Amino acid sequence: MKKVVLLRHGESTWNRENRFTGWTDVDLSPTGVEEAKLAGKILKENGFVFRKAFTSYLKRAVKTLNQVLDVMDLDWIPVEKSWRLNEKHYGMLQGLNKSETADKYGEQQVLIWRRSYDIAPDPMDMNDPRSPRRDIRYSGIPDAGIPLTEALKDTVDRIVPYWQLDIFPSLNQYDQIIVAAHGNSLRGIIKYLKGISDTDIISLNLPTAVPYVFEFDDSMKLVKDYFLGDPDEIAKKMNAVANQGKK
Amino acid sequence: MKKVVLLRHGESTWNRENRFTGWTDVDLSPTGVEEAKLAGKILKENGFVFRKAFTSYLKRAVKTLNQVLDVMDLDWIPVEKSWRLNEKHYGMLQGLNKSETADKYGEQQVLIWRRSYDIAPDPMDMNDPRSPRRDIRYSGIPDAGIPLTEALKDTVDRIVPYWQLDIFPSLNQYDQIIVAAHGNSLRGIIKYLKGISDTDIISLNLPTAVPYVFEFDDSMKLVKDYFLGDPDEIAKKMNAVANQGKK
Repeated sequence: MKKVVLLRHGESTWNRENRFTGWTDVDLSPTGVEEAKLAGKILKENGFVFRKAFTSYLKRAVKTLNQVLDVMDLDWIPVEKSWRLNEKHYGMLQGLNKSETADKYGEQQVLIWRRSYDIAPDPMDMNDPRSPRRDIRYSGIPDAGIPLTEALKDTVDRIVPYWQLDIFPSLNQYDQIIVAAHGNSLRGIIKYLKGISDTDIISLNLPTAVPYVFEFDDSMKLVKDYFLGDPDEIAKKMNAVANQGKK
Repeated sequence: MKKVVLLRHGESTWNRENRFTGWTDVDLSPTGVEEAKLAGKILKENGFVFRKAFTSYLKRAVKTLNQVLDVMDLDWIPVEKSWRLNEKHYGMLQGLNKSETADKYGEQQVLIWRRSYDIAPDPMDMNDPRSPRRDIRYSGIPDAGIPLTEALKDTVDRIVPYWQLDIFPSLNQYDQIIVAAHGNSLRGIIKYLKGISDTDIISLNLPTAVPYVFEFDDSMKLVKDYFLGDPDEIAKKMNAVANQGKK
Protein backbone atom coordinates (compact mmCIF):
# COMPACT_ATOMS: atom_id res chain seq x y z
CA MET A 1 0.00 0.00 0.00
CA LYS A 2 1.44 3.37 -1.07
CA LYS A 3 0.63 6.38 1.09
CA VAL A 4 0.71 10.13 0.58
CA VAL A 5 0.17 12.44 3.54
CA LEU A 6 -0.98 16.00 2.84
CA LEU A 7 -0.28 18.48 5.62
CA ARG A 8 -1.40 22.08 5.81
CA HIS A 9 1.13 24.28 7.66
CA GLY A 10 0.54 25.22 11.29
CA GLU A 11 -0.80 28.61 12.35
CA SER A 12 1.19 31.55 10.98
CA THR A 13 1.60 34.99 12.51
CA TRP A 14 -0.83 36.35 9.90
CA ASN A 15 -3.41 33.58 10.41
CA ARG A 16 -3.50 34.88 13.95
CA GLU A 17 -3.96 38.49 12.74
CA ASN A 18 -6.59 37.24 10.28
CA ARG A 19 -4.83 38.80 7.26
CA PHE A 20 -4.73 37.63 3.63
CA THR A 21 -1.32 36.03 3.29
CA GLY A 22 -0.99 34.31 -0.08
CA TRP A 23 2.61 34.44 -1.24
CA THR A 24 3.72 36.71 1.63
CA ASP A 25 6.47 34.77 3.40
CA VAL A 26 5.30 35.03 7.01
CA ASP A 27 6.62 32.82 9.80
CA LEU A 28 4.87 30.21 11.94
CA SER A 29 3.46 31.46 15.24
CA PRO A 30 4.58 29.63 18.42
CA THR A 31 1.22 27.80 18.27
CA GLY A 32 2.00 26.80 14.67
CA VAL A 33 5.32 25.28 15.76
CA GLU A 34 3.53 23.25 18.45
CA GLU A 35 0.89 22.12 15.95
CA ALA A 36 3.64 20.90 13.62
CA LYS A 37 5.37 18.96 16.41
CA LEU A 38 2.06 17.34 17.34
CA ALA A 39 1.50 16.31 13.70
CA GLY A 40 4.94 14.68 13.71
CA LYS A 41 4.14 12.84 16.95
CA ILE A 42 0.83 11.53 15.57
CA LEU A 43 2.48 10.38 12.33
CA LYS A 44 5.25 8.64 14.26
CA GLU A 45 2.76 6.91 16.59
CA ASN A 46 0.88 5.70 13.51
CA GLY A 47 4.02 4.09 12.15
CA PHE A 48 4.69 6.39 9.20
CA VAL A 49 8.22 6.45 7.79
CA PHE A 50 8.46 8.89 4.89
CA ARG A 51 11.22 8.52 2.33
CA LYS A 52 10.64 11.75 0.46
CA ALA A 53 9.01 15.11 1.21
CA PHE A 54 7.68 17.96 -0.87
CA THR A 55 7.03 21.52 0.23
CA SER A 56 6.57 25.07 -1.08
CA TYR A 57 8.93 28.07 -1.26
CA LEU A 58 7.19 29.60 1.78
CA LYS A 59 8.75 29.27 5.22
CA ARG A 60 5.51 28.47 7.07
CA ALA A 61 5.31 25.25 5.05
CA VAL A 62 9.07 24.51 5.03
CA LYS A 63 9.32 24.99 8.79
CA THR A 64 6.21 22.91 9.47
CA LEU A 65 7.85 20.12 7.48
CA ASN A 66 11.19 20.54 9.27
CA GLN A 67 9.48 20.21 12.65
CA VAL A 68 7.53 17.13 11.56
CA LEU A 69 10.61 15.41 10.13
CA ASP A 70 12.65 16.20 13.23
CA VAL A 71 10.07 14.72 15.61
CA MET A 72 9.93 11.63 13.35
CA ASP A 73 13.75 11.35 13.31
CA LEU A 74 13.65 11.80 9.54
CA ASP A 75 15.73 14.98 9.19
CA TRP A 76 17.83 13.12 6.60
CA ILE A 77 15.22 12.40 3.91
CA PRO A 78 15.27 14.31 0.61
CA VAL A 79 13.04 17.39 0.49
CA GLU A 80 11.95 18.94 -2.80
CA LYS A 81 10.76 22.55 -2.69
CA SER A 82 8.60 24.06 -5.44
CA TRP A 83 6.81 27.39 -5.93
CA ARG A 84 3.97 25.34 -7.47
CA LEU A 85 3.02 24.25 -3.94
CA ASN A 86 2.74 27.88 -2.79
CA GLU A 87 -0.54 29.20 -1.40
CA LYS A 88 -3.03 30.86 -3.77
CA HIS A 89 -1.79 34.35 -4.71
CA TYR A 90 -4.28 36.85 -3.26
CA GLY A 91 -3.29 39.79 -5.50
CA MET A 92 -3.91 43.23 -4.01
CA LEU A 93 -5.59 41.70 -0.96
CA GLN A 94 -2.28 40.37 0.38
CA GLY A 95 -1.54 42.03 3.72
CA LEU A 96 -5.12 43.24 4.36
CA ASN A 97 -6.97 42.13 7.49
CA LYS A 98 -9.88 39.86 6.61
CA SER A 99 -12.36 41.49 8.99
CA GLU A 100 -11.43 45.00 7.80
CA THR A 101 -11.83 43.87 4.20
CA ALA A 102 -15.26 42.48 5.10
CA ASP A 103 -16.23 45.83 6.68
CA LYS A 104 -15.09 47.69 3.56
CA TYR A 105 -16.25 45.42 0.72
CA GLY A 106 -18.92 43.40 2.51
CA GLU A 107 -18.74 39.88 3.84
CA GLN A 108 -20.16 38.49 0.61
CA GLN A 109 -17.45 39.99 -1.61
CA VAL A 110 -14.75 38.68 0.72
CA LEU A 111 -16.32 35.25 0.57
CA ILE A 112 -16.29 35.43 -3.24
CA TRP A 113 -12.63 36.40 -3.28
CA ARG A 114 -11.71 33.76 -0.77
CA ARG A 115 -13.93 31.03 -1.97
CA SER A 116 -15.16 31.42 -5.54
CA TYR A 117 -13.57 28.99 -7.93
CA ASP A 118 -12.78 31.29 -10.83
CA ILE A 119 -12.96 34.91 -9.68
CA ALA A 120 -9.57 36.36 -8.73
CA PRO A 121 -8.97 39.49 -6.63
CA ASP A 122 -7.49 42.46 -8.53
CA PRO A 123 -3.83 41.80 -9.34
CA MET A 124 -0.90 43.20 -7.47
CA ASP A 125 0.92 45.93 -9.46
CA MET A 126 3.88 44.34 -11.19
CA ASN A 127 6.12 47.13 -9.87
CA ASP A 128 4.91 46.56 -6.32
CA PRO A 129 8.01 45.85 -4.18
CA ARG A 130 6.11 42.79 -2.89
CA SER A 131 5.68 41.42 -6.43
CA PRO A 132 7.06 37.91 -6.88
CA ARG A 133 8.57 39.13 -10.16
CA ARG A 134 11.01 41.16 -8.03
CA ASP A 135 11.85 38.28 -5.69
CA ILE A 136 15.02 36.29 -6.46
CA ARG A 137 13.40 33.04 -5.42
CA TYR A 138 11.18 33.16 -8.52
CA SER A 139 13.95 34.39 -10.85
CA GLY A 140 14.14 31.01 -12.59
CA ILE A 141 10.51 31.24 -13.79
CA PRO A 142 9.50 33.27 -16.89
CA ASP A 143 7.51 36.39 -15.84
CA ALA A 144 4.42 35.13 -17.65
CA GLY A 145 4.41 32.08 -15.36
CA ILE A 146 4.46 34.09 -12.13
CA PRO A 147 1.00 35.06 -10.90
CA LEU A 148 0.14 38.57 -9.61
CA THR A 149 -3.24 37.26 -8.47
CA GLU A 150 -5.05 33.93 -8.64
CA ALA A 151 -8.50 32.45 -8.50
CA LEU A 152 -8.63 29.00 -6.90
CA LYS A 153 -8.89 27.66 -10.47
CA ASP A 154 -5.48 29.16 -11.29
CA THR A 155 -3.93 27.60 -8.19
CA VAL A 156 -5.40 24.21 -9.15
CA ASP A 157 -4.11 24.61 -12.70
CA ARG A 158 -0.52 25.13 -11.54
CA ILE A 159 -0.54 22.45 -8.84
CA VAL A 160 -2.05 19.54 -10.82
CA PRO A 161 0.81 19.23 -13.36
CA TYR A 162 3.30 19.21 -10.48
CA TRP A 163 1.32 16.45 -8.79
CA GLN A 164 1.15 14.46 -12.02
CA LEU A 165 4.76 14.91 -13.10
CA ASP A 166 6.71 14.99 -9.82
CA ILE A 167 4.87 14.06 -6.63
CA PHE A 168 2.78 11.11 -7.76
CA PRO A 169 5.54 9.40 -9.83
CA SER A 170 7.82 9.52 -6.77
CA LEU A 171 5.55 6.84 -5.25
CA ASN A 172 7.13 4.38 -7.70
CA GLN A 173 10.37 4.82 -5.79
CA TYR A 174 9.07 5.51 -2.27
CA ASP A 175 6.19 3.87 -0.42
CA GLN A 176 5.38 6.87 1.75
CA ILE A 177 5.72 10.55 0.98
CA ILE A 178 4.59 13.75 2.69
CA VAL A 179 3.52 17.03 1.12
CA ALA A 180 3.61 20.04 3.46
CA ALA A 181 1.86 22.98 1.86
CA HIS A 182 -1.10 25.38 2.05
CA GLY A 183 -4.89 25.41 2.27
CA ASN A 184 -5.47 26.15 -1.41
CA SER A 185 -2.59 24.30 -3.05
CA LEU A 186 -3.65 21.18 -1.12
CA ARG A 187 -7.27 21.77 -2.16
CA GLY A 188 -6.01 21.54 -5.75
CA ILE A 189 -4.49 18.12 -5.12
CA ILE A 190 -7.54 16.86 -3.20
CA LYS A 191 -9.94 18.14 -5.88
CA TYR A 192 -7.96 16.27 -8.53
CA LEU A 193 -7.59 13.04 -6.53
CA LYS A 194 -11.23 12.81 -5.41
CA GLY A 195 -12.86 14.39 -8.45
CA ILE A 196 -14.53 17.09 -6.34
CA SER A 197 -16.62 19.63 -8.29
CA ASP A 198 -15.67 23.30 -8.67
CA THR A 199 -18.53 24.20 -6.33
CA ASP A 200 -17.93 21.63 -3.63
CA ILE A 201 -14.19 22.25 -3.32
CA ILE A 202 -14.99 25.74 -1.99
CA SER A 203 -16.53 24.34 1.19
CA LEU A 204 -13.63 22.00 1.95
CA ASN A 205 -11.88 23.64 4.88
CA LEU A 206 -8.64 21.86 5.54
CA PRO A 207 -7.61 21.98 9.23
CA THR A 208 -4.10 23.26 10.02
CA ALA A 209 -1.38 20.68 10.68
CA VAL A 210 -3.69 17.65 10.67
CA PRO A 211 -2.20 14.77 8.63
CA TYR A 212 -4.54 13.83 5.76
CA VAL A 213 -3.68 10.33 4.50
CA PHE A 214 -4.34 9.05 0.96
CA GLU A 215 -3.84 5.32 0.33
CA PHE A 216 -3.26 3.83 -3.12
CA ASP A 217 -3.48 0.17 -4.11
CA ASP A 218 -0.99 -1.76 -6.28
CA SER A 219 -2.48 -0.33 -9.48
CA MET A 220 -2.07 3.13 -7.93
CA LYS A 221 -5.80 3.65 -7.59
CA LEU A 222 -6.94 5.78 -4.64
CA VAL A 223 -8.73 3.46 -2.19
CA LYS A 224 -9.04 5.41 1.04
CA ASP A 225 -8.51 8.84 2.56
CA TYR A 226 -8.72 9.90 6.19
CA PHE A 227 -7.47 12.41 8.73
CA LEU A 228 -5.21 11.32 11.60
CA GLY A 229 -5.96 12.64 15.07
CA ASP A 230 -8.77 13.44 17.46
CA PRO A 231 -12.06 13.89 15.45
CA ASP A 232 -13.43 16.60 17.78
CA GLU A 233 -10.22 18.57 17.55
CA ILE A 234 -10.25 18.28 13.74
CA ALA A 235 -13.89 19.44 13.48
CA LYS A 236 -13.07 22.43 15.69
CA LYS A 237 -10.13 23.38 13.48
CA MET A 238 -12.20 23.08 10.28
CA ASN A 239 -14.85 25.42 11.72
CA ALA A 240 -12.20 27.94 12.75
CA VAL A 241 -10.90 28.10 9.17
CA ALA A 242 -14.42 28.39 7.73
CA ASN A 243 -15.19 31.35 10.01
CA GLN A 244 -12.07 33.39 9.25
CA GLY A 245 -13.82 35.59 6.62
CA LYS A 246 -16.62 36.64 9.00
CA LYS A 247 -16.59 40.12 10.54
CA MET B 1 33.45 35.96 -7.65
CA LYS B 2 32.07 32.52 -6.73
CA LYS B 3 31.92 31.66 -3.03
CA VAL B 4 31.61 28.46 -1.05
CA VAL B 5 31.03 28.60 2.70
CA LEU B 6 31.95 25.56 4.77
CA LEU B 7 30.22 25.35 8.14
CA ARG B 8 30.86 22.82 10.88
CA HIS B 9 27.70 22.07 12.88
CA GLY B 10 27.12 23.69 16.27
CA GLU B 11 27.75 21.90 19.57
CA SER B 12 25.93 18.58 19.87
CA THR B 13 24.75 16.85 23.03
CA TRP B 14 27.66 14.44 22.70
CA ASN B 15 30.28 17.15 22.04
CA ARG B 16 29.22 18.40 25.45
CA GLU B 17 29.63 14.93 26.98
CA ASN B 18 32.95 14.61 25.17
CA ARG B 19 31.98 11.31 23.50
CA PHE B 20 33.03 9.90 20.12
CA THR B 21 30.04 10.55 17.89
CA GLY B 22 30.87 9.70 14.27
CA TRP B 23 27.74 8.46 12.51
CA THR B 24 25.63 8.43 15.70
CA ASP B 25 22.71 10.74 14.95
CA VAL B 26 22.77 12.97 18.05
CA ASP B 27 20.97 16.28 18.27
CA LEU B 28 22.29 19.83 18.66
CA SER B 29 22.56 21.11 22.23
CA PRO B 30 20.78 24.40 23.02
CA THR B 31 24.22 26.05 22.74
CA GLY B 32 24.59 24.47 19.28
CA VAL B 33 21.30 25.97 18.15
CA GLU B 34 22.44 29.42 19.31
CA GLU B 35 25.80 28.98 17.56
CA ALA B 36 23.96 28.14 14.32
CA LYS B 37 21.72 31.22 14.60
CA LEU B 38 24.78 33.41 15.20
CA ALA B 39 26.46 31.95 12.10
CA GLY B 40 23.34 32.85 10.07
CA LYS B 41 23.39 36.39 11.47
CA ILE B 42 27.08 36.87 10.60
CA LEU B 43 26.54 35.52 7.07
CA LYS B 44 23.55 37.80 6.54
CA GLU B 45 25.43 40.85 7.85
CA ASN B 46 28.22 40.03 5.40
CA GLY B 47 25.77 40.08 2.50
CA PHE B 48 25.75 36.38 1.65
CA VAL B 49 22.78 35.06 -0.34
CA PHE B 50 23.12 31.32 -0.94
CA ARG B 51 21.27 29.70 -3.81
CA LYS B 52 22.01 26.10 -2.93
CA ALA B 53 22.99 24.17 0.19
CA PHE B 54 24.55 20.79 0.89
CA THR B 55 24.49 18.83 4.12
CA SER B 56 24.92 15.33 5.55
CA TYR B 57 22.42 12.68 6.65
CA LEU B 58 23.04 13.59 10.30
CA LYS B 59 20.62 15.87 12.13
CA ARG B 60 23.23 18.01 13.88
CA ALA B 61 24.35 19.22 10.43
CA VAL B 62 20.86 19.37 8.87
CA LYS B 63 19.49 21.36 11.81
CA THR B 64 22.48 23.71 11.88
CA LEU B 65 21.79 24.42 8.21
CA ASN B 66 18.04 24.89 8.80
CA GLN B 67 18.75 27.46 11.53
CA VAL B 68 21.24 29.33 9.34
CA LEU B 69 18.89 29.42 6.34
CA ASP B 70 15.98 30.56 8.49
CA VAL B 71 17.93 33.47 10.01
CA MET B 72 19.01 34.43 6.47
CA ASP B 73 15.41 34.22 5.18
CA LEU B 74 16.54 31.49 2.76
CA ASP B 75 14.32 28.60 3.94
CA TRP B 76 13.25 28.18 0.29
CA ILE B 77 16.59 27.29 -1.33
CA PRO B 78 17.28 23.73 -2.52
CA VAL B 79 19.11 21.53 -0.02
CA GLU B 80 20.93 18.38 -1.10
CA LYS B 81 21.65 15.80 1.60
CA SER B 82 24.33 13.13 1.20
CA TRP B 83 25.83 10.46 3.46
CA ARG B 84 29.18 11.34 1.87
CA LEU B 85 29.20 14.51 3.97
CA ASN B 86 28.76 12.50 7.20
CA GLU B 87 31.34 12.71 9.97
CA LYS B 88 34.21 10.21 10.02
CA HIS B 89 32.92 6.81 11.20
CA TYR B 90 34.64 6.06 14.51
CA GLY B 91 34.03 2.29 14.50
CA MET B 92 33.86 0.66 17.92
CA LEU B 93 34.74 3.95 19.62
CA GLN B 94 31.35 5.48 18.81
CA GLY B 95 29.53 6.25 22.05
CA LEU B 96 32.62 6.10 24.29
CA ASN B 97 33.61 9.12 26.36
CA LYS B 98 36.88 10.61 25.12
CA SER B 99 38.40 11.10 28.58
CA GLU B 100 37.47 7.55 29.66
CA THR B 101 39.00 6.21 26.46
CA ALA B 102 42.15 8.21 27.21
CA ASP B 103 42.30 6.69 30.73
CA LYS B 104 41.88 3.18 29.32
CA TYR B 105 44.01 3.24 26.16
CA GLY B 106 46.27 6.21 26.96
CA GLU B 107 46.09 9.73 25.64
CA GLN B 108 48.53 8.91 22.85
CA GLN B 109 46.40 6.08 21.43
CA VAL B 110 43.31 8.27 21.51
CA LEU B 111 45.22 10.98 19.69
CA ILE B 112 46.26 8.43 17.06
CA TRP B 113 42.68 7.28 16.59
CA ARG B 114 41.34 10.79 16.46
CA ARG B 115 44.10 12.36 14.51
CA SER B 116 46.24 9.92 12.54
CA TYR B 117 45.67 10.13 8.83
CA ASP B 118 45.49 6.46 7.97
CA ILE B 119 44.95 4.40 11.15
CA ALA B 120 41.31 3.54 11.78
CA PRO B 121 39.80 2.41 15.11
CA ASP B 122 38.63 -1.23 15.20
CA PRO B 123 35.45 -1.62 13.15
CA MET B 124 31.96 -1.84 14.57
CA ASP B 125 30.50 -5.37 14.37
CA MET B 126 28.34 -5.56 11.25
CA ASN B 127 25.54 -7.09 13.36
CA ASP B 128 25.74 -4.29 15.91
CA PRO B 129 22.26 -2.70 16.08
CA ARG B 130 24.03 0.66 15.62
CA SER B 131 25.60 -0.49 12.34
CA PRO B 132 24.76 1.78 9.38
CA ARG B 133 24.13 -1.41 7.38
CA ARG B 134 20.99 -1.86 9.51
CA ASP B 135 19.81 1.73 9.12
CA ILE B 136 17.22 2.45 6.37
CA ARG B 137 18.80 5.77 5.54
CA TYR B 138 21.79 3.92 4.04
CA SER B 139 19.71 1.23 2.35
CA GLY B 140 20.37 2.71 -1.10
CA ILE B 141 24.13 2.15 -0.77
CA PRO B 142 25.78 -1.26 -1.44
CA ASP B 143 27.05 -2.78 1.85
CA ALA B 144 30.64 -2.62 0.63
CA GLY B 145 30.32 1.16 0.34
CA ILE B 146 29.11 1.62 3.92
CA PRO B 147 31.97 2.05 6.40
CA LEU B 148 32.06 0.26 9.79
CA THR B 149 35.10 2.35 10.74
CA GLU B 150 37.21 4.98 9.03
CA ALA B 151 40.62 6.57 9.18
CA LEU B 152 40.64 10.22 8.18
CA LYS B 153 42.05 9.02 4.86
CA ASP B 154 38.87 7.00 4.23
CA THR B 155 36.69 9.99 5.02
CA VAL B 156 38.72 12.13 2.61
CA ASP B 157 38.46 9.45 -0.06
CA ARG B 158 34.65 9.40 0.08
CA ILE B 159 34.18 13.16 0.31
CA VAL B 160 36.49 14.30 -2.50
CA PRO B 161 34.51 12.64 -5.35
CA TYR B 162 31.31 14.22 -3.99
CA TRP B 163 33.01 17.62 -3.97
CA GLN B 164 34.31 17.11 -7.50
CA LEU B 165 31.13 15.70 -9.02
CA ASP B 166 28.33 17.51 -7.15
CA ILE B 167 29.26 20.43 -4.94
CA PHE B 168 31.91 22.20 -7.02
CA PRO B 169 30.03 21.90 -10.38
CA SER B 170 26.97 23.51 -8.76
CA LEU B 171 29.00 26.77 -8.72
CA ASN B 172 28.45 26.94 -12.47
CA GLN B 173 24.77 27.47 -11.74
CA TYR B 174 24.91 29.29 -8.41
CA ASP B 175 27.32 32.05 -7.30
CA GLN B 176 27.16 31.21 -3.61
CA ILE B 177 26.67 27.87 -1.93
CA ILE B 178 26.94 26.61 1.65
CA VAL B 179 28.05 23.20 2.91
CA ALA B 180 26.97 22.37 6.47
CA ALA B 181 28.79 19.28 7.67
CA HIS B 182 31.29 17.87 10.17
CA GLY B 183 34.85 18.40 11.44
CA ASN B 184 36.35 15.56 9.43
CA SER B 185 34.27 15.64 6.24
CA LEU B 186 35.06 19.36 5.95
CA ARG B 187 38.74 18.62 6.61
CA GLY B 188 38.58 16.40 3.54
CA ILE B 189 37.32 19.26 1.38
CA ILE B 190 39.81 21.76 2.84
CA LYS B 191 42.73 19.34 2.39
CA TYR B 192 41.80 18.88 -1.25
CA LEU B 193 41.21 22.58 -1.97
CA LYS B 194 44.37 23.86 -0.27
CA GLY B 195 46.64 20.90 -1.00
CA ILE B 196 47.36 20.33 2.71
CA SER B 197 49.65 17.38 3.51
CA ASP B 198 48.49 14.21 5.29
CA THR B 199 50.45 15.31 8.35
CA ASP B 200 49.35 18.94 8.48
CA ILE B 201 45.63 18.26 8.05
CA ILE B 202 45.67 16.52 11.45
CA SER B 203 46.38 19.77 13.29
CA LEU B 204 43.64 21.73 11.52
CA ASN B 205 40.95 22.14 14.18
CA LEU B 206 37.87 23.59 12.61
CA PRO B 207 35.82 25.72 15.05
CA THR B 208 32.11 24.85 15.44
CA ALA B 209 29.60 26.98 13.49
CA VAL B 210 32.13 29.53 12.23
CA PRO B 211 31.58 30.29 8.51
CA TYR B 212 34.73 29.45 6.51
CA VAL B 213 34.64 31.24 3.14
CA PHE B 214 36.41 30.05 -0.03
CA GLU B 215 36.51 32.45 -2.99
CA PHE B 216 37.08 31.36 -6.59
CA ASP B 217 37.96 33.59 -9.57
CA ASP B 218 36.41 33.41 -13.04
CA SER B 219 38.59 30.45 -14.01
CA MET B 220 37.39 28.71 -10.81
CA LYS B 221 40.79 28.94 -9.17
CA LEU B 222 40.81 29.29 -5.38
CA VAL B 223 42.07 32.79 -4.59
CA LYS B 224 41.26 33.38 -0.94
CA ASP B 225 39.94 31.66 2.16
CA TYR B 226 39.04 33.17 5.52
CA PHE B 227 36.83 32.73 8.58
CA LEU B 228 33.99 35.15 9.33
CA GLY B 229 33.58 36.40 12.88
CA ASP B 230 35.50 37.62 15.89
CA PRO B 231 39.15 36.35 15.64
CA ASP B 232 39.52 35.90 19.43
CA GLU B 233 36.32 33.89 19.60
CA ILE B 234 37.45 31.71 16.69
CA ALA B 235 40.87 31.04 18.27
CA LYS B 236 39.18 30.06 21.52
CA LYS B 237 36.90 27.62 19.70
CA MET B 238 39.81 26.05 17.79
CA ASN B 239 41.67 25.45 21.06
CA ALA B 240 38.62 23.89 22.67
CA VAL B 241 38.36 21.35 19.82
CA ALA B 242 42.10 20.57 19.96
CA ASN B 243 41.90 19.84 23.70
CA GLN B 244 38.92 17.45 23.57
CA GLY B 245 41.12 14.32 23.56
CA LYS B 246 43.01 15.31 26.71
CA LYS B 247 42.22 13.63 30.03
